[in-house]
This record gives sequence, structure tokens and C-alpha cells, in this order.
Amino acid sequence: MLLTPVIHVIGWFLSVLGLAMFIPAAADWFVANPDWQVFVATGAGTAFVGSALVLATRGTSLNISVRQGFLLTTGSWIMVCVFGALPFTFSAQLPLNYADAFFETMSGLTTTGSTVISGLDQLPPGILLWRGLLQWFGGIGIIVMAVAMFPMLKVGGMQLFQMESSDRSERAFAQARRYTAALFFAYTALTLLCASLLKLAGMTWFEAAVHAMTTLSTGGYSTSDASVGHFPQHSIHWIITCFMLLGGTPFIIYIQMIRRGPLEFWRDRQIRAYLCFLATAIGGIAVWLWAVDGFSVEASLRQSAFNVVSIVTTTGYAISDYSKWGTLPFGVFFLLIFVGGCTGSTGGGIKIFRFQILWSALGQYVWQRVYPHGERPFLYAGRPVSPDVVMGVLMFILTFLVTVAGVSMFLEALGLDLVTSLSGAVTAISNVGPGLGEIIGPAGNFSSLPDSAKWVLSAAMLLGRLEFLTALVLLSPAFWRG
Amino acid sequence: MLLTPVIHVIGWFLSVLGLAMFIPAAADWFVANPDWQVFVATGAGTAFVGSALVLATRGTSLNISVRQGFLLTTGSWIMVCVFGALPFTFSAQLPLNYADAFFETMSGLTTTGSTVISGLDQLPPGILLWRGLLQWFGGIGIIVMAVAMFPMLKVGGMQLFQMESSDRSERAFAQARRYTAALFFAYTALTLLCASLLKLAGMTWFEAAVHAMTTLSTGGYSTSDASVGHFPQHSIHWIITCFMLLGGTPFIIYIQMIRRGPLEFWRDRQIRAYLCFLATAIGGIAVWLWAVDGFSVEASLRQSAFNVVSIVTTTGYAISDYSKWGTLPFGVFFLLIFVGGCTGSTGGGIKIFRFQILWSALGQYVWQRVYPHGERPFLYAGRPVSPDVVMGVLMFILTFLVTVAGVSMFLEALGLDLVTSLSGAVTAISNVGPGLGEIIGPAGNFSSLPDSAKWVLSAAMLLGRLEFLTALVLLSPAFWRG
Repeated sequence: MLLTPVIHVIGWFLSVLGLAMFIPAAADWFVANPDWQVFVATGAGTAFVGSALVLATRGTSLNISVRQGFLLTTGSWIMVCVFGALPFTFSAQLPLNYADAFFETMSGLTTTGSTVISGLDQLPPGILLWRGLLQWFGGIGIIVMAVAMFPMLKVGGMQLFQMESSDRSERAFAQARRYTAALFFAYTALTLLCASLLKLAGMTWFEAAVHAMTTLSTGGYSTSDASVGHFPQHSIHWIITCFMLLGGTPFIIYIQMIRRGPLEFWRDRQIRAYLCFLATAIGGIAVWLWAVDGFSVEASLRQSAFNVVSIVTTTGYAISDYSKWGTLPFGVFFLLIFVGGCTGSTGGGIKIFRFQILWSALGQYVWQRVYPHGERPFLYAGRPVSPDVVMGVLMFILTFLVTVAGVSMFLEALGLDLVTSLSGAVTAISNVGPGLGEIIGPAGNFSSLPDSAKWVLSAAMLLGRLEFLTALVLLSPAFWRG
Repeated sequence: MLLTPVIHVIGWFLSVLGLAMFIPAAADWFVANPDWQVFVATGAGTAFVGSALVLATRGTSLNISVRQGFLLTTGSWIMVCVFGALPFTFSAQLPLNYADAFFETMSGLTTTGSTVISGLDQLPPGILLWRGLLQWFGGIGIIVMAVAMFPMLKVGGMQLFQMESSDRSERAFAQARRYTAALFFAYTALTLLCASLLKLAGMTWFEAAVHAMTTLSTGGYSTSDASVGHFPQHSIHWIITCFMLLGGTPFIIYIQMIRRGPLEFWRDRQIRAYLCFLATAIGGIAVWLWAVDGFSVEASLRQSAFNVVSIVTTTGYAISDYSKWGTLPFGVFFLLIFVGGCTGSTGGGIKIFRFQILWSALGQYVWQRVYPHGERPFLYAGRPVSPDVVMGVLMFILTFLVTVAGVSMFLEALGLDLVTSLSGAVTAISNVGPGLGEIIGPAGNFSSLPDSAKWVLSAAMLLGRLEFLTALVLLSPAFWRG
């Protein structure tokens, strides 16, 4: 009863996932790499399981309740990972066990971008394309979830972005269907534009396609171990900087810009704060690079812009090892891992609007110390903010930090030092990708961690992507009693 | 008008401070150390300024308003530091400039215990006694503030501990006067008991007196560079562990135990959580010491108990360099710096009751996701918790963390590494004392930091001690307009 529509939708997701595996199969077949058989086999298997689930639950009503919404969101994300990992395990090109494969898939779908694979430059196109596709699908997945599901589930203060004043679930679902097509269109159009520009700037079509998919999704999987640093062209660095920035922007704004003109972009309060924050961080780091590290003006700006935007949008590309830039940049990058892009984008992290609400709530709180009996409306972008939204935002941030503490303690128990453990926990929960330190820093990767760490970090990425409460609610006895 | 009663009370504080300087003067005079003249001169000067302020504002009403309460709390703390630092600067025994002296005094009065003085073992008794006295006065100061001022100022959710249902300030002040004598008595009695036991266990009377004062105040200034590690007697370690634990307990409980019996101790919800938390942390670290580091069972328990209690109660004594114990203890000690003792004790940090409120608020929030229209009372220790209390607690924690981020960025800009900067910021804000890493860890001290870092850390200690909002409110334009 409770599960039937959930299983039905998950069945559809798995069917699409299975079909998607035929894309890398085609790529590998084209270059005569035997991996094409792996993709065909796992694709067919996944699509079979998916369609079996769809058929077994056909005729079910899709008017899902809030409780089913929680189950569907967490359940579909996990199931897609379970099946999406199959090509990585079965591919003869990769020495990955299932823990590695699941980590790589979760990191892909959550658009985190932490990897356990090295030697990317020598890999056949199928695997590279599958990594890019996982991030690309994960990106559109989170955009649609942020517009359609989270406001309905009222987690992390997301009901602020509810577009209908009703909280009836059918409305939310109908709204999701209406917006999904437009969002998908904007997402695809930007990806194609990014790929074309990257091709013009000197990438091959294949590299351009993979990087465009992992840029707009702020995922950060690359076709090279050196990440975007593999490409010496400055134009490539700037193009990717711009499109990462667009990927960290709420996608709904592109629809609004078409309807109401391009000025909407600057009128959005969250985007304005996002741009101002980025400008400050880029400027600060650039000045340090120029004054302390002796970079040229051009290199300071480009290096700072690329790496700051990469971390804040939670993409995780690198064109240089910024952990060698000095103590202040090191500390700033540690803090930037927390920040995240805008809500409604493909970016992870705490997200700009929560900092805005936090700042306003702090102002409101201070004001009330001075005027204990005064009343003042609490507005965000002209709309009143309910106490439940404020509470949701604060709960989100604190759950985030408590999760960081828990995950980092687990990593420390495995023998990792404080900086690696802390930054590893934050980078997973924020869906950024690289951490700090020798092992998991921008120049390292996650392959040397024990399997238990990979499972815990996979869970951390999922928790962060689902804004914690969506998944944590399932652990509360009240949920199952209700 | 606004300032008159504030100046009056500060005048009284300075008069008492000036008189208190005659105690170390007597000690130095007794051992024929020329420093006694410094203490007499600064004591007389401070008492003169204090009594001048009292006389200039005599006849003022002491019915202070909430706004005056904010000014008084922050102002008195700063003024006492300004004058309390004079002996350190003028003493011929110490090479301290005023930044050092102010840091040492702020660290003393806020019962932090970070020091810039090395060679403690060779110092004359006057300076050592003055450090102990500053912490002892700071300890009773914070106990009285937590009972009398914070609930009235409604900062950090402290109105939960309001004993009268009225929020009229005269009541709060009257209540403060009524409780102050009893609290002072409990504090003094425990200090005397601790000193006697330490003497019995092998300290000199002087060492026992200083350590008793800095133990009950959870301050952590010692008479030796090696801190309590200077004393090999295990009985001393255990006595200090017990009294640090008592110092981190709300002192009002001792009054309640006299009235209603000793079982009150265990009936208090905050104390119960505090003891359970300590038992878990001590047990966990002890098992690690025994299993991984090969300590004996006795040494594991004693070392773990002493250092964990020292950090959680924010005392900051050390009997060994726990930063060498391995990655997990290192990470755990980093987290423990945040925790803090109970509200109403001399301990700093976030404090146990805030974690309890946070945990309950999270439960409430999850429950509401499942039952969006349900209602459930939010109780703490049988009393309803208002949304303003919850908001105060969350704001406290987030302001704490934002301050940590800001201070650590400042320290990084001075060239300190991430672990030193982060732990230095937290240890100051939590009023713990030692940080982590080579420079400011349990085996180091703060003397090598530049003056700018000392000023910033002094401000951080004050902010933490005054629970942030008490001081931050003074920075808001609304406060001065109101």
C-alpha cells in the first residue's frame, strides 16, 4: 500500500538508467573496446528489473503522500546507485570491488566528484562517459527534487521555495511535471552550449561532452587525473569557470529570464548574494596569490576564480594544487567547502540562501534582545519567512555540522589525520569532491582509503545531497508508526 | 543617565580588584621579593580609580534596565581586565608588554587558562597567586552572572534558567543578591576542601591554594610549566579530576542539595547528561590508550579521565601531551574543546544543556515532518521550552561557530597552520586553554604569537565568556537608538 507507488517510480528510474547504459556501450563499441559487452549486459539487466517493477505495480495512483515522498526520494537514490555501480565492478579495465564501484557511483550521482579511479587518461571512453552521464543525470535529478520534492517535504527550510500556496501533494507533483520539461530544456541547452565552446577552445568532442556534463552538474569528474589542469588553454579555464558558476545558480531563473527578461538574474536575492560572495572570495585569494605567492595578475585572477568557483559551486575540478598556496588560502578553502551554491542549482553544501536566512535571523534575534516586546516582520525576497523555515535552516546547518563531526571521528579512528578526516567529511557531505591534505587533496584521490571509509563517505554524500532530513526521517520510529 | 549606575557598579568592582592586589603584595613581601611594591602601587591606583567612580556616581538607583545590564556586563569585564593587567606589565620578573599582560589577564578572568608566561616554576609567589586569584574571581563572577544576569538578558536561551517568572529587572537583581552569598559560600567551601586534600596528597600549601582556586574555577593556571604533570602523585591527579568535575557542575545544585538532600545531584537533567557524556568519552579514550597505545589499565583510566575532564570542563590542565596519543584521540580532543561544562558552572564552551535542547529540537523537527499538523509540547526538565529559548540556543551555537571561522581565518592570515588556527580559535572561545599542534598544544604556550593574535584571542575569550550576544548586542545600531 505504502510502497506500491514508490516501487513503481523507482522501476521507471531503473528502466531509464538501464537504457542509459547503452550510451557508453555504443561509445566502447565504436572504439572496439570489449567493455561494450559489460554495459550492454548490465544495461539490459537493469532495464529488465526496472520494467518488472513497473509492470508489477502498474495501475497504482501516483498521488503520493508526504510519507511516500520521503521513501521515494531516499529509496530511488539508493536503488539507482546500487544498479549504476554494476558497470564499474564488472568492467575488465578497472580493479574496483563493489565498495569502490558504489562509492564512485554515489559520488557521481550526488555530483560530488570524489574518485577512486586513477589512470583516467588511459581509460576507454565507455567508463569516462558513464561517469559523466551519472553526474549529468544526478544534476537534473537534484534540480527537479529541489523544485518539486523538498518544498513538499518541508526539509531544511525548503518550503520557502514552494510555488503553490497549497501543500497538497498532488499539486506539488503536478507542478513538478510542469516544470521538469522546462528545467530539463534549460539544463540541456546550457550543456550543449558549454560543450560547443569547449570544443572551440581546443578540447576534442568527447572531452568537451564529458566536461560539459560534469560542469553544468557541478560534479567535477574529468577525463584526466590532472583534472582540468590537463588542459593548458586559459580559455578553457575561463569557460569552465563561467559554466560552473551557472551550474551553481538556481535553474528556475533561466525559465524566469525567458519569461521576464535577463534582468531577473540580478533581481534574485540569492543569486546577488552568491555573486557578491564569489567576488569577495576570488578577490581576496587573488590578492594573496599576487602579493604573497608572486603570481602574475592574470594568473592570480584565473587561478583564484577557477578554484574558488569550483569549490563554492561544489564542482571540485582543480587546475592547480591550491593546498600549496599558503596558510590563509588553505584555511579559506577549508571554509569554502562548507558554503555551496544556490538552492535549486546542482550545487551542494549549506547553500547561499541558508546563510542569508541565518544572517537575518541573527539580526532579528539581536533586535529582540533590545526590544523584548517589539514585533518586526521577517521577510526574505519580499515574502514572509515562517518560524518553521528559520528552524529548518538552523536544523539543516547544525545537522550538517554534527554529521561532519561523526564522519570525521570515524575517519580518525581509521588512522587518518585531523585535516584529512575533517575535510574528507565536509567534502563528502557538501558534495564538493576533493578534500585537503596529501591523501584526498586536489592532487590525490580516495582509492587508498579502506572500504569501510568508502561506505561511510558514500552515506555522507547521500545525506548531504538529500539535505539530511529526507533520509533521517526514515530512521525515526514516528515515521513508521504514523 | 544610561551610564551612571553602570559606572557605579564598575567602580565597586575596581575597588575590590585593587584591594585584592594586596594579597599577592603580602605574599611577595613575605618572601622579600621586590614585586610587592608593584602590587601595592597598582592596587592602590586601581582602588583609587574605583572609589572615585563610586563616589562620583553615589546616590544612583541600582534598578538597572536590560540595556544597562548589557553595558554593565561587558563593560565591567573589560575594565577589570584593563586594570588587572597592570601588575603583569609592571612586574620586573616578566618580559610582558601590555598586549601580553592583557591576554594573560583576560585568559585568567575568563577562566580560560591560556598563558604567555613560561618559566612558571621560577616565578615569585606574587605573580602566581595573582594568576590564581584572577581565575578564582572570574569563576565566581561567571557563576553569579549565569544565575543573575544572563536569564534577564535572555541571551543564548538562558531565560530557561530564570527562577522568577517575572522579567522585571529589579527582581533579577534582588534575586542575584540573595543567591550570591550562598553561591559564594559553596564556591569557597569547595575551594578550601580541594586545597586541603591537595595539601594532604603532597603539595605545599601555596601550590595547593593556587591549584584549588584554578581547579574550582575551571581556569587551569598552574604553578609549573608542566601543569599538573609536574606532580607525580596519582592521588593529586584524581583529586583534581574530581574537583574539575565539580567546577563544571551548576553551583546552584550545591544549595539545592543542602535544602533537599544529595539525590538532587542525580535528579538534575543537565548534570545527568554531563556525567553520562564524560563517562562515555573517558571510557572510549581509555580503551584506545589501553588497546592501541599499550597503557596499563590504571594509567589508561587516570590519563583519560584527567585530560577528558580537564578539556570538557574547560579547565585546560594537562598531565601528558594527549596530542601524541593517535589520530582518534587527537580528533576527539578537538571536538571536546567545543563541548564545555554545565550552564551555571565555571565551565565555558557550548555547554551541556544546549546540546540537550538541540537534540530535543531536532527530535521535534523530525516529528513535525511526519505529522505536519500535529502538536507536541516541548519540555526540558518538566518545564515548557519557549521557541525563543530554542532560537537562543541555536543562535548561540551558530554564533560560536561563525566566530571560530572568523578568528581562525585571522590566525591563518598570520601564517599559522589550519589545526593551530582552528584549535586556537575554539580553545579561546570555549575558555579551555590549550589548543592542538606544536605551538599552542598542551606542551606549548601562546607567547610566540604576534600581538595582533593576542588581542584577537583576548576578544574571542571575552565573547565566549559573555555568551556572545551580551557583547554583540552593543554593536547593533538598534541598541544605541533604543
